[in-house]
This record gives sequence, structure tokens and C-alpha cells, in this order.
Amino acid sequence: MKQLPYLQKANTPFRDRDVTKVADIIHDWNGDKINGVGLIGAPLSKSSISHSGACFAPGTIRKALAGYSTYSIEEKVDLAEIVVQELGDIMMHVTNISESQNRVYETLSQLLVKNPDWLPIVLGGDNSITYPSIKGFAQAKGKVGVIQFDAHHDVRNLEDGGPSNGTPFRSLLESKTIEGEHLVQIGIRDFSNSKPYYDYVNKNSVTVYTMKDVRRMSMMQIIQESLKKLKDQVDSVYVSVDMDVVDQAQAPGCPAIGPGGMDAQDLLDAVAFLGEHSVVEGLEIVEIDPTVDFRDMTSRLAAHVILQFLKGKFKKRLI
Amino acid sequence: MKQLPYLQKANTPFRDRDVTKVADIIHDWNGDKINGVGLIGAPLSKSSISHSGACFAPGTIRKALAGYSTYSIEEKVDLAEIVVQELGDIMMHVTNISESQNRVYETLSQLLVKNPDWLPIVLGGDNSITYPSIKGFAQAKGKVGVIQFDAHHDVRNLEDGGPSNGTPFRSLLESKTIEGEHLVQIGIRDFSNSKPYYDYVNKNSVTVYTMKDVRRMSMMQIIQESLKKLKDQVDSVYVSVDMDVVDQAQAPGCPAIGPGGMDAQDLLDAVAFLGEHSVVEGLEIVEIDPTVDFRDMTSRLAAHVILQFLKGKFKKRLI
Amino acid sequence: MKQLPYLQKANTPFRDRDVTKVADIIHDWNGDKINGVGLIGAPLSKSSISHSGACFAPGTIRKALAGYSTYSIEEKVDLAEIVVQELGDIMMHVTNISESQNRVYETLSQLLVKNPDWLPIVLGGDNSITYPSIKGFAQAKGKVGVIQFDAHHDVRNLEDGGPSNGTPFRSLLESKTIEGEHLVQIGIRDFSNSKPYYDYVNKNSVTVYTMKDVRRMSMMQIIQESLKKLKDQVDSVYVSVDMDVVDQAQAPGCPAIGPGGMDAQDLLDAVAFLGEHSVVEGLEIVEIDPTVDFRDMTSRLAAHVILQFLKGKFKKRLI
Amino acid sequence: MKQLPYLQKANTPFRDRDVTKVADIIHDWNGDKINGVGLIGAPLSKSSISHSGACFAPGTIRKALAGYSTYSIEEKVDLAEIVVQELGDIMMHVTNISESQNRVYETLSQLLVKNPDWLPIVLGGDNSITYPSIKGFAQAKGKVGVIQFDAHHDVRNLEDGGPSNGTPFRSLLESKTIEGEHLVQIGIRDFSNSKPYYDYVNKNSVTVYTMKDVRRMSMMQIIQESLKKLKDQVDSVYVSVDMDVVDQAQAPGCPAIGPGGMDAQDLLDAVAFLGEHSVVEGLEIVEIDPTVDFRDMTSRLAAHVILQFLKGKFKKRLI
Amino acid sequence: MKQLPYLQKANTPFRDRDVTKVADIIHDWNGDKINGVGLIGAPLSKSSISHSGACFAPGTIRKALAGYSTYSIEEKVDLAEIVVQELGDIMMHVTNISESQNRVYETLSQLLVKNPDWLPIVLGGDNSITYPSIKGFAQAKGKVGVIQFDAHHDVRNLEDGGPSNGTPFRSLLESKTIEGEHLVQIGIRDFSNSKPYYDYVNKNSVTVYTMKDVRRMSMMQIIQESLKKLKDQVDSVYVSVDMDVVDQAQAPGCPAIGPGGMDAQDLLDAVAFLGEHSVVEGLEIVEIDPTVDFRDMTSRLAAHVILQFLKGKFKKRLI
Amino acid sequence: MKQLPYLQKANTPFRDRDVTKVADIIHDWNGDKINGVGLIGAPLSKSSISHSGACFAPGTIRKALAGYSTYSIEEKVDLAEIVVQELGDIMMHVTNISESQNRVYETLSQLLVKNPDWLPIVLGGDNSITYPSIKGFAQAKGKVGVIQFDAHHDVRNLEDGGPSNGTPFRSLLESKTIEGEHLVQIGIRDFSNSKPYYDYVNKNSVTVYTMKDVRRMSMMQIIQESLKKLKDQVDSVYVSVDMDVVDQAQAPGCPAIGPGGMDAQDLLDAVAFLGEHSVVEGLEIVEIDPTVDFRDMTSRLAAHVILQFLKGKFKKRLI
Ligand SMILES: [Ca+2]
Ligand SMILES: [Ca+2]
Ligand SMILES: [Ca+2]
Ligand SMILES: [Ca+2]
Ligand SMILES: [Ca+2]
Ligand SMILES: [Ca+2]
Ligand SMILES: [Ca+2]
Ligand SMILES: [Ca+2]
Ligand SMILES: [Ca+2]
Ligand SMILES: [Ca+2]
Ligand SMILES: [Ca+2]
Ligand SMILES: [Ca+2]
Repeated sequence: MKQLPYLQKANTPFRDRDVTKVADIIHDWNGDKINGVGLIGAPLSKSSISHSGACFAPGTIRKALAGYSTYSIEEKVDLAEIVVQELGDIMMHVTNISESQNRVYETLSQLLVKNPDWLPIVLGGDNSITYPSIKGFAQAKGKVGVIQFDAHHDVRNLEDGGPSNGTPFRSLLESKTIEGEHLVQIGIRDFSNSKPYYDYVNKNSVTVYTMKDVRRMSMMQIIQESLKKLKDQVDSVYVSVDMDVVDQAQAPGCPAIGPGGMDAQDLLDAVAFLGEHSVVEGLEIVEIDPTVDFRDMTSRLAAHVILQFLKGKFKKRLI
Repeated sequence: MKQLPYLQKANTPFRDRDVTKVADIIHDWNGDKINGVGLIGAPLSKSSISHSGACFAPGTIRKALAGYSTYSIEEKVDLAEIVVQELGDIMMHVTNISESQNRVYETLSQLLVKNPDWLPIVLGGDNSITYPSIKGFAQAKGKVGVIQFDAHHDVRNLEDGGPSNGTPFRSLLESKTIEGEHLVQIGIRDFSNSKPYYDYVNKNSVTVYTMKDVRRMSMMQIIQESLKKLKDQVDSVYVSVDMDVVDQAQAPGCPAIGPGGMDAQDLLDAVAFLGEHSVVEGLEIVEIDPTVDFRDMTSRLAAHVILQFLKGKFKKRLI
Repeated sequence: MKQLPYLQKANTPFRDRDVTKVADIIHDWNGDKINGVGLIGAPLSKSSISHSGACFAPGTIRKALAGYSTYSIEEKVDLAEIVVQELGDIMMHVTNISESQNRVYETLSQLLVKNPDWLPIVLGGDNSITYPSIKGFAQAKGKVGVIQFDAHHDVRNLEDGGPSNGTPFRSLLESKTIEGEHLVQIGIRDFSNSKPYYDYVNKNSVTVYTMKDVRRMSMMQIIQESLKKLKDQVDSVYVSVDMDVVDQAQAPGCPAIGPGGMDAQDLLDAVAFLGEHSVVEGLEIVEIDPTVDFRDMTSRLAAHVILQFLKGKFKKRLI
Repeated sequence: MKQLPYLQKANTPFRDRDVTKVADIIHDWNGDKINGVGLIGAPLSKSSISHSGACFAPGTIRKALAGYSTYSIEEKVDLAEIVVQELGDIMMHVTNISESQNRVYETLSQLLVKNPDWLPIVLGGDNSITYPSIKGFAQAKGKVGVIQFDAHHDVRNLEDGGPSNGTPFRSLLESKTIEGEHLVQIGIRDFSNSKPYYDYVNKNSVTVYTMKDVRRMSMMQIIQESLKKLKDQVDSVYVSVDMDVVDQAQAPGCPAIGPGGMDAQDLLDAVAFLGEHSVVEGLEIVEIDPTVDFRDMTSRLAAHVILQFLKGKFKKRLI
Repeated sequence: MKQLPYLQKANTPFRDRDVTKVADIIHDWNGDKINGVGLIGAPLSKSSISHSGACFAPGTIRKALAGYSTYSIEEKVDLAEIVVQELGDIMMHVTNISESQNRVYETLSQLLVKNPDWLPIVLGGDNSITYPSIKGFAQAKGKVGVIQFDAHHDVRNLEDGGPSNGTPFRSLLESKTIEGEHLVQIGIRDFSNSKPYYDYVNKNSVTVYTMKDVRRMSMMQIIQESLKKLKDQVDSVYVSVDMDVVDQAQAPGCPAIGPGGMDAQDLLDAVAFLGEHSVVEGLEIVEIDPTVDFRDMTSRLAAHVILQFLKGKFKKRLI
Repeated sequence: MKQLPYLQKANTPFRDRDVTKVADIIHDWNGDKINGVGLIGAPLSKSSISHSGACFAPGTIRKALAGYSTYSIEEKVDLAEIVVQELGDIMMHVTNISESQNRVYETLSQLLVKNPDWLPIVLGGDNSITYPSIKGFAQAKGKVGVIQFDAHHDVRNLEDGGPSNGTPFRSLLESKTIEGEHLVQIGIRDFSNSKPYYDYVNKNSVTVYTMKDVRRMSMMQIIQESLKKLKDQVDSVYVSVDMDVVDQAQAPGCPAIGPGGMDAQDLLDAVAFLGEHSVVEGLEIVEIDPTVDFRDMTSRLAAHVILQFLKGKFKKRLI
């Protein structure tokens, strides 16, 4: 019906012919072999120790991401040329949390085994998805190293509440999915972790950079050190971003907010740098609860984390 | 990829095999001849006298509507059998308000002329869309009668601000699109209208039921009287619901809220009754501003207005 | 500078030449003898037992009032002809609450003694202003009767916290400013008052209509009974409206909200009726805390209370 | 330290010597035999189909309850004489939802078997706790009848999500914990339930009063009919209040709000009436999500539901 | 009436005899020749691409400004001696956006031509007012240079939506109101602008400092470079502050917020420095939407921008 | 009743056997001699010039504090070994503000005189409590020096409003409780103080570090200078933290927020350093209004201020 020039799909945003938006480079996956970057949602947060609406974060991150332009004026690169696959969400079970976690593992491991060239960006959900995600990742990638941005160690015992958002790295270490030497924790914060858990990561040879380290050293120095250490020892590096690593003023929408956190720009710079290295083959963002955020600020930051990661990859023609 | 039973489109809601949701009976229009009910959005609110986000209401009404079930337990009818066409939104111009209003007219008149069997449900937007909507409707329908639920006459002069959400019925009357005798205003409220405008509608033979009338008579009596009056004089009746007709406690998301308004149940009953009559061939809902609403209460009420209308139609096999 | 047709005072609202707004009939008092209705603010809430921002209510009520039109379509009367004096606010002391209360008394008694034809509408503030207000009122008016709309007796002992928003009627009775037989309390609510205080009002021959009475009788019957009882015994009647008498769904902005309250329309009808009687010579509205309200709903209701009162007065040519 | 007359426990509210608050009659359970009313919290909401913070409702209901006075002015009875036991909360498992539900069952059945004179008031939590609660209740009480106030049947199939807040009455019927003839559902709402589920309750001889019934009949008639029907057939009646039965304007803090609901006063009257009968031996309140409520309105209403229930009991000296 | 020492104008704030507030130095313009600083509001935001309440910003900025003291402790200068003229708001048309924009132009050009010694501070409004404002400014000032603080180029094409908040600098350049060499953009952000628009400004010889430049250089260096470049080439410099240049954590009330923005202190320092130079003769602040701000934080920042500008001017005795 | 393993006190938070929380080291005071750190609340805010809910801050700070762990990973010290006494709140008078202030003085002086080894942490409340608190402190400690973090001098005259949150240091100086040379003010902000008050502190030889000083020098330098200056001249140092010293983006919950404030980390570092010195024997935190905060961010920061103070004390074995 040509005579209806103004009728369009509901909720269509304003379109400027001279702007390529990230929405324009994201395409629903058609089931073919996946090459390059692909988004997948793991909307699970019933596994959280405290009440969390992190199950809504895949939606808010995608919405924020879609609205940005593809052009990095800082680096003069335009992501307009690449394609990002949208794989959709992993369906969670209403009342069986461990089944939900298993679905994350099953889906990721199957996808990665069949699509070794897929570079997954996993949108949590709470931090409990990290164990099944990395377990699935490791299935396909061999020896895995993890760079974790987090205010917390997340190595709680499993007796007091089961596999929650406080336990993923305990599970990864106990199950030997990853080795302690291949785990780097950046941004660990004062009065937010217990001594027994610090002793635990220490005993397991985990590398820990506290916020004091972040304040005293430069982030570039930390991230270069971290990657250098891992690069020769592992086959693949996975980057796990718990958004609560950032200060409460800049990431107000995480369940466990507090002062004394990382500057958002430091996180963006670190992820851009990590994106530039081919050994870095996976990224996840967890612990954003949009129901307590202010104007989706934390999801907007997450979108920028993804864009900086893509910028790094694209600059080095890794995607 | 059969092995991925849990991968689904992003944001897919929980599905219960024994529940038919309204979402299941709404289908995107494919461009063919339209039969029966069809939704169309007119997301315009820059035309409002006071600041309004009514442009977001088509989205929130659709979302509320999609989540309800199709079954009326009160009348034991199930809308699962019908199809509701989703025509989408009329694209608004960023900076030319009269052009936007004209697009509403052009789109509706073209659609209705070509699809005489379409029963339009227009989702505003502010009340300024009423003039182009009914003008388009009248193009196809002949002599039109209007039953307007509103706290306000909406017959402001056009000199002091142009065609705004305060002027639609002035424009309709002045342009002779409808005649005063064919307009019934229900729910007009104390201290919310000026004497000159009451004199104007009076002079134009508009039928006015104030809130005092609504409190003293029963709503059924009013609505029966109204429809009876119109039925023999016009070819088609259009129902215009300005949600601010309802009391502020029950419709808190309208720009011009206040006490002393209509009970929501009265509105629902009236619309269900109107739906039962074949002469009623159009419905619009306007003046919901989701940015100031509480938990989309007012959009939820709008969804129920639509459902009661459909229930009436379906009971009498008019759709 | 004639060439600047569009430059106007900051924050000027939209003006429609065919609408008279209440703002147009409110004039700042010039210090002359006051005739008729005059508004005065008593922005005191530090005297509240629980935290309260009722000090902001004179501002929000005035703002709501200013925006309504002067025309009552229900009664076909237009307040456009009358003048409402704006006397301003009584300046409160920052840290001396009893001084603030005394200023209310001093200001009201002085004004009323010098301006016997002033019909004061006092905008609280919390309910503690009722004691000095009525004390000032009585100074000029002789024997005073009070019709109090309130969920609570407000006859708390003065030992446990001094003259607060819980004590005004205790103070009025103890000081013999008014007699118990001349006090009518309407809307007293279940589980919101203690037995000793019910015994106290009982012992003092106060007339009490509980919410059960309000539900079983009609409001018109109650208010007629009340006024009839007072009319012959007192020189002047003062109407005190604690907005928490209304149900929490309709007056969400009071400190002590709860279910089981009065319907807002009943309150409006009662006040309109009271306005029609010449013996009713004062009105106050208290206990609105705009900082916890939703979209100033409760202040909007207060504005309608004032308008219904004026409508009653104007219908009978009492102003 | 007598010299410190002003030092008191943190957060102590204002105390008026002439007011008995509900807080004054609630005592922490010391482990002895329980006589009379006792509160117990079941803070589970991970079992909800949609995101819910109902786990916080035991806290907000208790807080609202504590602040009311013990005196019913409507009935002139003072609950000051009774004692309400506070049993505390049932500890929920962080990640095992069925374990949490089992804990509700285990705790309630053990408590009730050992304390046959305990009259439990269960504070949910979402509606999924109803199955284990009533199962525990039935363990001790024999044949149980249930009067359920709810907008929804809550008889969803268990295949599509396990035992959630949509399934409790399905589980109760399928497990023969209660029989269909002993279940009365009041307040079932249009477009909020599917035909298959209506057919299911019908087939199971459940008594259903829709909102249309509630509007046409009086609530007293419905509740008398319901109780009469159950009284002779069962040993004990349990009252289940899903607060979403009330209209969204009066109970804005439920996950599944909507228009067309029950008037809050009707619910209060019904529960007061039920309280007067000795066969009614249990009460639960579910589906309040304080994180989306406005000023704890819905928890305040819940507190009044409890108080009306206690009033009924106390009037008839059943406690 | 001398006996009423406590009666004062409604809403009078607390007054401390030892504090001069900015409110004390702002005087309503009496129509005489304007010397020095004068505020003028341009409350237009219907021209925004996305929904915006920037029309309310003149009000919130004025309110924030009024409450600050006149004394700079950092520089030991007191603005108490100067007078700031309040010219009021330019009246916007309700439904004709281009008419509204034209009124901005007409009003500013007329005022500036007649009052060459007026130093205008224009309070937006969205960024669309920049084109008519600077066009009016240029009318009186000759060759104009612009220092624009903004996350965005704002040179969108005019075909896709007309003259909106995304196009002002396109219009200025296309109309030759200013030349590209005389435009300096500071704070342009990653993934917030398209390549075609970067190419456009580049081709037009606009000077661009991205946020990467801001992070690597000092703000003082950038601003000195910028001013030095302009000073010799233009007659007058206008400073345009789109508040979204600041990071979302510090300016949360702009429509287009995001991470990676400028530190607020850098902006304040830059504006103070610019104020010190006589060639800088105009300032505007745009793109604050108070309806989405948190506690008027962004308007408070805007007030400080103005105060730092005045401080610079006053230190150098330019006002 | 051993068989009830899941029944626990209402609102019990999740417990991880490997985590010591601050809640675990806080014990209600039993009336014995106090050794070491003890918390005491002064919930007074009716004394504030602007409306303030700072009376709720003792509650929100305690809640935030309770949830943190005891372990400082940055310094590898665990506060698990110490005991913090919880003394409770000082009961405020409902309507007599000076009585309330006197109770602060009486309670603190009595407690300190009898418990010279008590290290008080006073939780305000507004800044008016500082005068009675320090007066009480000085009673027991001899010559007192004060390090005040504040955007404001707080030396307003007492004529214009009595002893408010704007006057504490005026009262302290005028009463000779402390001498001007023994007062250090850090963080004084531009356009937030008047010249007469700057002159006043200057004349009284108060040491003032403005925010310009804070930006130009390092915080460590300032705090070392300050402490060095005081250490030899006074017997004891009291640290007063008005949280509005911090920038509005990081401490959004203070009544007088604004841009240009101190970085939160600087405050934390300064307090940790002060904690390390034995001469520092008291700490207070004032001016947090939780009713306007975002997610208790400002109370969370306050909790960290306390923890850093304790860390300093504990590192040096001063507690
Ligand atoms: Ca974390
Ligand atoms: Ca984590
Ligand atoms: Ca209307
Ligand atoms: Ca209308
Ligand atoms: Ca009351
Ligand atoms: Ca009262
Ligand atoms: Ca339900
Ligand atoms: Ca239910
Ligand atoms: Ca911008
Ligand atoms: Ca811009
Ligand atoms: Ca301060
Ligand atoms: Ca202070």
C-alpha cells in the first residue's frame, strides 16, 4: 500500500539518513554458522543472595546499545562494517534455579563447540551465570584464563545457599574449570570481602588487584600485567565484568553498590585494550539490576563497555 | 539447530500452554484488506498545551494489552477466536506539528476508504489527534456521531495556540465535520471548564452530561440515552475516550488529573455497552502520559477499555 | 519597548482569552480592610509527631488552585466575579516551635479583630496550627463551633510531646476556647485512635461520627445534623479539614495515610453544603505533606475543597 | 545508669502514655505452647512467574501493623487485652525454591500439630506458599475449606514452570489436600484468567464469585453464602487473601495489578465477618511486593485486614 | 498594618541578615537600556528529537541560582555589588515550533541591537534555540566565534526532521551566520556521533576536541588554545553549553546522558576562564530536562556555570 | 523446639559462615563502663533551616554499616576482633528543639565524664547537634580541637533563627567551648558562604581550606598540616563530617547539595589517616537526609567513613 508513507512498525525510532546506529549492525541469528561477535542473554537473577532484578538487564543493555552510533570519533573507526549476531535469550525455568544454570551451560557449550568462531558477549543476569558460562566456554576453548572486574572475590562456600551470585569463582576453581593462577581479580574493595575468602583466593594463587592497587598504579599497567601473565599460560581469555566494580556514583544500578569503586573510564579503557588482543575471546556483563538503576545509567555504561570491546577488536581487525 | 531447546527470541515472556493471551490474537498487518478490529498508533503530544509524554502511550497500552488473557469470565466469552490487526504507528514529524496532524488524517482516511470493514482503535497521543482522526473517519463513514468521555469540552479557541489538545471538538464543529447535535460529552467536571466554552457547546446543541449527572443518574441510563439519541441521526458512531474523565485516583497518569472524576468501572461498563452496537465503528483513547503514571495503571485501564469494547463486539458477533 | 511582543514574565502559564482561572481572581492584599475570602498560609510542620513536610502545602495548594477555572458547570455559577485576597504566609521561627504557633495566633487574632468581614481560609501546615488558629478566630467571633473532618480525635495529652499535630483539640477544650458540645468530629477511623482518647471526647460531650457512621448514613444526613446542632448554640462555625480523613487511595499525600477512609466526593459535597451557610465563617486545610504525595493529588483535592466552599458561599451570595 | 533519662534503644518510636499500639500486644514467641493468634512470615517470592519482591512483605506488613492502635472505635472493642505471638520468619533457601516451599510445609505442620490452639496468620511471600501452608494446616486440622480472595484462579498446570505463584490451588486439588467443593474463590476478574482454567475449577466443583458477582450482590451476601456452604462440610476454614483481588487504585503494590477489582472496604468487612466464626482458624496474606508499592499502602491495607480479623475474633471471644 | 510583623509574601525563603543571595542581585528589567548581565529564558523543547522537558529548565536554573550566595571564597570576590537583569521568558507558541524559534531570534536581535552593552545569558530550552539565539547575537555583534561544550556535533541534516535540537550548528554554518573556522567543539564523545557528521565538521574546518583530547590534555590548555585561535579572528565570542557534555553521573538530567563525559569541575574552570575575557559576550545553557533530573542536580550545576562566568567577568571588572 | 530448624527471628539476613559482618561486632550497651568505640544517635533535624529528614540518618547509617564485612583487604586488617558498643539514640522532644539539643549535651557529657575511655561516634541528625555534642565532649576532654569537613562555615548569626544547623561553630566559638585557632575547616565551597561569615572565621583565626585548596594541594598534605597544627595545642581532637562536603554526584542525599565538592575517596583517606592518631577521640557524621537520597548512597558512604576511621584506630591498636 504505497499510499501510506507514514505508517510504520510500532515504536520505530527517529531515523537520520546520515547516522548508522548500533541497531543497524545487530541482526537476528538465522541458525547458520556464527562468525564474529554475537550477543546472548542469560536473564537469571533468582540465584542472587539479595533481591535482584538483574534478569531485566539483557533487555536494558540491548536497548541502550541499539541507540548509540557505530562511530568512534576518538579512534576514527566505524563499526558500521561489522555484523553483530543477536542469538536471543536463554529461557529460564520459573522455579528450578539449578536447571536454569544448567541451561546456560548447555546452550553455551553446544553453541561454542559448533561455532568455534563465535565471539560471545553474554548479557547477565547475576554473577551466578558466570560458572555455567565459563564452563561452557572452556568446553570449546581449552585452557581458559579469566580477567574479572569485581568488587568481590565471589568465592563463597556452597553450603550456605547453593550456587548463587556469590559463588561462581569458587565453583570454577573447585571444579578445576579454571586454575587459580589463571584468574585475575581487579577492583576488590575494602570491607566488602571476608578474610577467609581472601585467604582462599590467595591459597589458590589467584591474582588480586584491590582498589588501593587501582588507585596507586595506572589501570593500563594493571591490565597489561594481567594480560601478559595470562597470555602465555592459557588458550583463551574470558573477560567477566561485574558492574559493581565501578563506583556507586557511576554505576548506581547494581545490587551491591558502595563508595570507593573504580572510575568508569578506567573500566572502559581496560576493556578497549583487552579487545585488541586475539586471545580475548569472550565477554560477559553481570549484576545490573535495572529496577533500582537511575535512568538506565548502568546499562548505558554496559553498552559502552561492549562498544569499547568491539572497538578494540575492530581496530586490530579481529572481527 | 534442534539441540538448542532453550534459546528463544529476546524478551520472550513466560508461556503457559493453557492460556491464550491478547498478544496471541494480535497480528502485524500484511497490507491486505482489513476486516474487523485493527490498532493504529498516533504518537503525537507536542501539540499539548502543557508538557505531555502522551506520545509514549501507544507503546504502554499495547504492552498492557498484550499481557491480558483473552477470556472474559464475567460473560463467558473468549476472544481467542478473533484476530486483531496491528497496523503500527503513524510516523510523526519532529518539528512540524500540523504536518503530523495531517499525517493522522491522511493515513486514517486512506485506510478507511480502502478498508470500509476496518474497525479502527486509535491509540493516542494527546487529544489533538481527535480532529484529524474523526475527519478521516468521517471521510469514509458519512454522518458521524461522537460520544466523548472527557472532563473537558475541548472547544478552545484556535487563536491562542493553534490546533492543540484543547481544541479538537472546536475544529470538528467549525469545520462541520460533525454537527453539535451529534456530539455527546460525558463526565464534564466542575472548575475544569470555562463559562464561554460551556456557552459555546450549548449554543451548538451539544449534549453535555456533567459529573453531577453521572453521580445522580446511572451510567447505563446516560449511555443508553446517548446512543439512542445518536443512532437514528448518524451513519456511524465514534467513541472518544480522554482518560482524564476518570478520577485521579484511578487514572493517575493523565496530564490534567483531578478529583471528582468518573469511576473506572462506569467507563468500562459504558464502553462494553457501546461495543455491543453495530453503529459504533471506531474507538480512540487519548491523553495518557506514561512518564507521569504510576506503574502504567492508566494504560492498564486503557487496555481494559479496549477489551470491554471487544467483548461487546464479540458478544454480538460484530467482529 | 513595544517591539518585544513575546517577552513576558518568567514562568507565565499559557493564557486562553476565553478562560478565567482562579489565579485571575486572587489578588495580593494591599493592607486595606479585608472583605470576603482571604487566603493565609501557616507553613508549620516541625510540630508534627512524625516527620512531615506539611510546611510546603500552602505553596502546592495555591499552585493547584491557581490553575483551575472559576466556572462550576455543575451549578452554573462563575466565581469570576469575586475577589480572593492573598494575605501571604505567616513567617515561622526556625527553631522555636511554640513561638511559631504563637505567631499564628497573634496574626489571626489581630487580622480578624480588625477585619470582621474577612472569611479566612487557612492553609496549613500540620494540625498543630488548629489551636492557635481557632483561638485567634474565637477572639473575634465569640462562641465558636467546629466541624472537624479527621481520621483522628487529636486530643492527645500534652505531657508526652508538647503542643503537636496530635493535640489541637485537647488544647482547645482544656483552654475552654471551644466547648465539647460545639465540636463535631467526622470520619474517625478504626485502629487509629486509642480508647482513652475516645473516652476523653465522650466525657467532653464531643459529637463523633466514625467511618462506620459515614458508610451507613449518607454524608448529607451527617452534615445537616451537625450543622443543625451547632447553628443555634454558637456564633460562628469553623471548618477544619485534616485531609487524612479521606481514603489513602484518594489522598495519598498525608503523613498518616490508611485504608477505610472517606470518599473524596463526600468531603467535597459536605464542604459545598457548609459553604452555603452564613454561620460558617472559616475554613482550614491541614496535614498535606507534598513531599510524599503523588503528583500533588492531595493538594489538588484541597483546591477543590476550597472551590466547593466558595461555590457554596457564592451561590448564596455570602461572598 | 539512671542519669541518662533520654538514652533509648535505637529507632524507638514516639510513645504516648494514653495509646496502646499493636506493637505493645505482639510478643516474640518464647517456645512455649502457643495459644491464640501468632504471626509467621514466609518470605518467598523467587517462585513467582513475574519478578516479585513479595519476600519483603512480612517486614512491611509487620511495620504497618505495629504502628496502629489496638482500639476499634467502630465496635468499641480494644485488642489491648490480647497477646499476639510473633513466631518469626521461615528461613528460605537461597537457590533451592522447592526446598524453601518444603520448609514452609515442615514448619507449619510441626507447629500446628504441637500447638492445636495456635491461630496462624501467615505473611507471604507470593501465592506459592499457599500450597505448603494449607498442606501443613490440613495436617493438623482435618478436612479444610478455603475461602480465597483473588483476581485469579491460580490453578495453572505444573508442567510449564513448576510450583509457582500461579499453581497453588492446582496443587491443593491434585494432591487432594482440599476438595474442590471446599474451595470458594471470590473476586475472579475479567481477562485475567483463561478459559481452560475456568473449566478446570468448574469441573472440580469450585465455587467462583467473579467481580461481576461482587458488583451485583453485596459482599455480605457472598461471604455469608460461602461460609454457610463450608461450615457443615469441613472441620476448619482457612482464609487466603491475595491482595491483588483489590482494585489497583487501592492496592497498588501487587505484581499483577489492574482495574476492575474489589473495593478495599468490602474485603475488610468480609474478613471481619469471617473472624467472628470459630471454624475460621487460619489467615494468610500474599502477593504484596513492597518494592513497587506506593508508601506501603498495600501493606497498610494488609495490616487492616489482620486487625479486622482480630476484631471479629475478639468480639466473639474466640481469642 | 504595622502590627503584623510575621505576615510576609507567600513562599518567602529564610533570610539571614549576613548573607547576600544571588536572588538579591537579580532585578526584573524595567525596560530601560540594559547594561551588563541579563538573563533571558527560551523555554522551548518541542523541537527535540527525543521527548524533552527542557522547557522547564529556565525555571529550575533560576531557582537554583537564586539560592546561592554571591560570595566566591576561592577568589575572594563578592558579586553583591553587581546587578543582573531578569528579562523574563520568550513566549513560545503552543503548536508552531518554527514560529517559536523565530520569536527567539526576533527577541534577541531586537534586544541586542538596542542594547549593545547587554551581556546575555540565555537559558534554554533545547539546543534548537542555539541557531536563532546566535543569529540574533550575530545581528548585533558582527563576526561571531562560538565555543561549544557538547557531546555531539549537532550538525544533522535538516531533511529528516527539520530544525531540531540536533541541527543548530548545521543551520549556523549553512546560513553562514558563523564560519566553520570560528566554531570550536569541546567534549565530542565516542559512539555518540556519526562519521558523516564528523566528516562534515571536518570539511568545514571546525575545531574539534574529543573527550579523548580532554582526558589527555588539560582543560586549561584546550580552552586557552581555543580562545587564542578565535580572539583575533572574530568580533565577539559566544559560549554555548550543552550540559550533556558533562558525565552522566554529574549531569544526570540531560536527555542524552551517557558515560565517558567531561568532569563538571573542568567545565566550571573553563567557563570561569572564558568569563575573564572581554571578547566573550554571550553565554547559553541548553539541554537540561528537569523532569528526569535527580534533585535538580543539573540545574544546580548550570547555576554554578553562570556564577563562574560572572566571577570571571567581575574579577576583570568587565561587569 | 529443636524440630524447627528454619524458624528464625524476623528479617534475619542471609548468613555465610565464612563472613564476619560489622553487625557481628556491634553489641547493645549493657550499662557497664564503656571501653573503645561506641555509636550514639542524635536524630534531630527539626533544627534545620531548610526541611530535613536527617533524623532518619542514624537508622540508615546503622543499617548500611551492619551489612559490610569487617575485613579491610587494602590493609589486611580484620575488625572482627573489636567490639563496637551500640548506645542507642538520644530521645528527642517532639516540639521543643532547644530541649532536644540540651539532651544531646546532657547525655554526651554525662556519658563521657563517666566513661573517659569511650570513643564516641555520633550519628546525626543535622549539624545543630555539633554544638551540644562538642560541648559535652569538651566537658570531659579539656581543650578540644575540631577538624570539620563541610562545604559551609556554619557560623551564622543566632538572631535570625536561633541555634540551627547553620550556627554550630558560631555557638562553639562564642561560648569559648573551642578557640578559633583550634578549628580547621576543610572543603569550604564557592558561592555557598557569605563574605561576612568568611570575615568572621578569619577574624577568629580559624584555619580554612577551600575546595580550591583541596583541588590544588593533596588531601594528605592538608590533613597532615591540620593535624600537626592541632596536635600540640589541644588535648583532644574531634572530627566533624558534614557529608555535604562531598560532591553532589557522590553524596546526593544531603539537604544542601551542589557541584564542585570533595571527592569521596579523599574524605575516606583523610578519615583513615585521622583514625591512626590517638589524639583523635571523637567522630560525628551529620546532614544526611535519607528521604531525598538515592538508594542510601550517602549513608553507605557514611558507613565507609566510620569503617575507615576504625581501620585507622585498629591498625595502630588504639582500639
Ligand atoms: Ca560484585
Ligand atoms: Ca560478582
Ligand atoms: Ca480532558
Ligand atoms: Ca480532552
Ligand atoms: Ca488526622
Ligand atoms: Ca488531625
Ligand atoms: Ca492473584
Ligand atoms: Ca493468587
Ligand atoms: Ca549534546
Ligand atoms: Ca547539543
Ligand atoms: Ca554543610
Ligand atoms: Ca554544616
